[in-house]
Amino acid sequence: MVDGAVEALRTWGAGSTGSRLVTGSTTLHATLEEQLAAFCGAEAALVFSSGYTANLGVVTALSGRGALVVSDARSHASLVDACRLSRARVVVTPRADVAAVDAALAARTEERALVVTDGVDSIDGGIAPLRELHAVCRARGAVVVVDEAHALGVCGPGGRGVLVEAGLAGADDVVSTVTLSKSLGGQGGAVLGPRAVIEHLVDTARTFIFDTGLAPASVGGALAALRVLREEPDRPAAVLRVADELAEMSRAALTSSQVGRGREGEVPLAGQLPLTGSAVVPVVLGSPVVAFDAAARCLERGVRVGCFRPPSVPDGTSRLRLTARADLTTTELDRVRTVLHEVLDDVLAEVPA
Amino acid sequence: MVDGAVEALRTWGAGSTGSRLVTGSTTLHATLEEQLAAFCGAEAALVFSSGYTANLGVVTALSGRGALVVSDARSHASLVDACRLSRARVVVTPRADVAAVDAALAARTEERALVVTDGVDSIDGGIAPLRELHAVCRARGAVVVVDEAHALGVCGPGGRGVLVEAGLAGADDVVSTVTLSKSLGGQGGAVLGPRAVIEHLVDTARTFIFDTGLAPASVGGALAALRVLREEPDRPAAVLRVADELAEMSRAALTSSQVGRGREGEVPLAGQLPLTGSAVVPVVLGSPVVAFDAAARCLERGVRVGCFRPPSVPDGTSRLRLTARADLTTTELDRVRTVLHEVLDDVLAEVPA
Ligand SMILES: Cc1ncc(COP(=O)(O)O)c(C=O)c1O
Ligand SMILES: Cc1ncc(COP(=O)(O)O)c(C=O)c1O
Repeated sequence: MVDGAVEALRTWGAGSTGSRLVTGSTTLHATLEEQLAAFCGAEAALVFSSGYTANLGVVTALSGRGALVVSDARSHASLVDACRLSRARVVVTPRADVAAVDAALAARTEERALVVTDGVDSIDGGIAPLRELHAVCRARGAVVVVDEAHALGVCGPGGRGVLVEAGLAGADDVVSTVTLSKSLGGQGGAVLGPRAVIEHLVDTARTFIFDTGLAPASVGGALAALRVLREEPDRPAAVLRVADELAEMSRAALTSSQVGRGREGEVPLAGQLPLTGSAVVPVVLGSPVVAFDAAARCLERGVRVGCFRPPSVPDGTSRLRLTARADLTTTELDRVRTVLHEVLDDVLAEVPA
Repeated sequence: MVDGAVEALRTWGAGSTGSRLVTGSTTLHATLEEQLAAFCGAEAALVFSSGYTANLGVVTALSGRGALVVSDARSHASLVDACRLSRARVVVTPRADVAAVDAALAARTEERALVVTDGVDSIDGGIAPLRELHAVCRARGAVVVVDEAHALGVCGPGGRGVLVEAGLAGADDVVSTVTLSKSLGGQGGAVLGPRAVIEHLVDTARTFIFDTGLAPASVGGALAALRVLREEPDRPAAVLRVADELAEMSRAALTSSQVGRGREGEVPLAGQLPLTGSAVVPVVLGSPVVAFDAAARCLERGVRVGCFRPPSVPDGTSRLRLTARADLTTTELDRVRTVLHEVLDDVLAEVPA
């Protein structure tokens, strides 16, 4: 992947030199768009400089004044900003609540409607009920936009995402967005969908038109990563197996730390225990100070974990986020297990009961 | 620059791996931030994944509900989106109209106010009246945000930007944004300003917090480009000299094409003739079809120029945009002159008079 990026740099230079509409498009961008679309079973794709700007671009271009946007309460910040920016009427529905989406669509006076949701919840890894959601959207004449940031390369057959898994890829009322910065390990984003939608974005998506095209190194890196995904179709399943293991070990570590504090059998955070089915494994610790401290202690012991605090997550649900990778070895996983136990014991012991 | 990017790639990998607040910060990012701030005379800097997200981040984080944002009518699309996203009350003032800004600030009921403007107009290259604007902002207790996208590496002493040129760098009520994708030839953006502002952004700017950090290759490329700027301080002046020449030759080509059409002495587009003082040289042609055609014909003849059509520019002002580079040779400039004459003769001859 690094080699792919280096080759692109040597061939195309450090920057794309301008907006994709002016001087910033290379054949490398077009190739990535073709390959992303083919991989995910979409008709066409459009590369943006980030997943963030891809989300801003697609939602604003497909809605606008006089449209309704129904957004899941757990939509990623970039989708939330996209809704604000869209000037559409925005209705926020409770997490994964298809009936609420149906009701919002049914009650609308606007002709056009867009439903937006993360495919995989970026905080706890839960997967959206896409088939049900799509059925409702189709019945009500709405387009659905699914953010596959945490799904590409991890979920669905060969890592093709949750839309392919749900049998919805290529549908004419389904659009998805991806980031090239997570499983593909680089930078950038893309929108995938029907060709007519993609053409509309080229003409109207402000974060496409008024932004410098993605740097060639990032395009080349993403192409190389896609090649790895095609050539090693079992990698995504390995990621999910590792995620299961990580979830299991954090559940055990949390439980034993609680038990160690003399609350035998009581697992107050059980409701927040890790879901699986994606690479995202949350370990909810409550206080931001505790979570930050735990992440720092993990890092000291050689285990790099994410730490999410408000405003990224609701108050009282600060957490570690473990991210599964296909190439974690058994030895490394054993190390993670030990470190998690030690660290959670330490930090939870220090919390006033 | 490519070498700097390659070295960064080999050392740090293809992606920054996550949000800067979670796992996406490297010492390379910190170094770039220090060097950008030092180069532009600011106290501190924060790197974003693009100039677009830098603008969204700074304006939203420094305004919000209960604030006033006064935006120049010619502000870049990313600043316009930032205003929309901010939930502040937004007043748009005519281009470079300091009195109108003063009036808007004076009439406000909001305590906090932000004034945003491009330092160099991205469409015609004009430079904002920064000293007057700052005096008004200071008198009225407003912070000014200046987008230096087209200024960094081109304007001011050694390419340090229009704020340094105006003697305003480092002021405690001045913030600037830059892109790493234009004169620095890569990808990314940054906000520069007082340390307290930068710290506030780390905690609150959504496009910083919820976005993957800039890819190491882009950070490394920008560091290498900054080194070139420091080591070759005469480059920016060379860019401006080339811009002057390009402006002169397009003025001549436009005039002679008009004259060739039998309107001796009459230069209907004179009001739109190129300004200089920046690298941006506009050649206003009116119709989008003509401008697109002219750009294509230039490219066929080996001269790559930008083409701006609505919605990037107002109706009836579609144009070519020539961009000056320090390394254009005399031979290349002669070639540009010839091609401009030929192409403008051709395309304008075909426009019904
Ligand atoms: C669900 C989701 N969507 C979009 C993004 C934004 O992608 P990017 O970092 O490429 O801007 C992220 C994370 O960064 C994410 O988690
Ligand atoms: C004035 C101005 N600001 C901001 C931007 C956005 O910068 P970037 O392309 O790095 O997102 C651009 C151009 O792309 C610009 O011309």
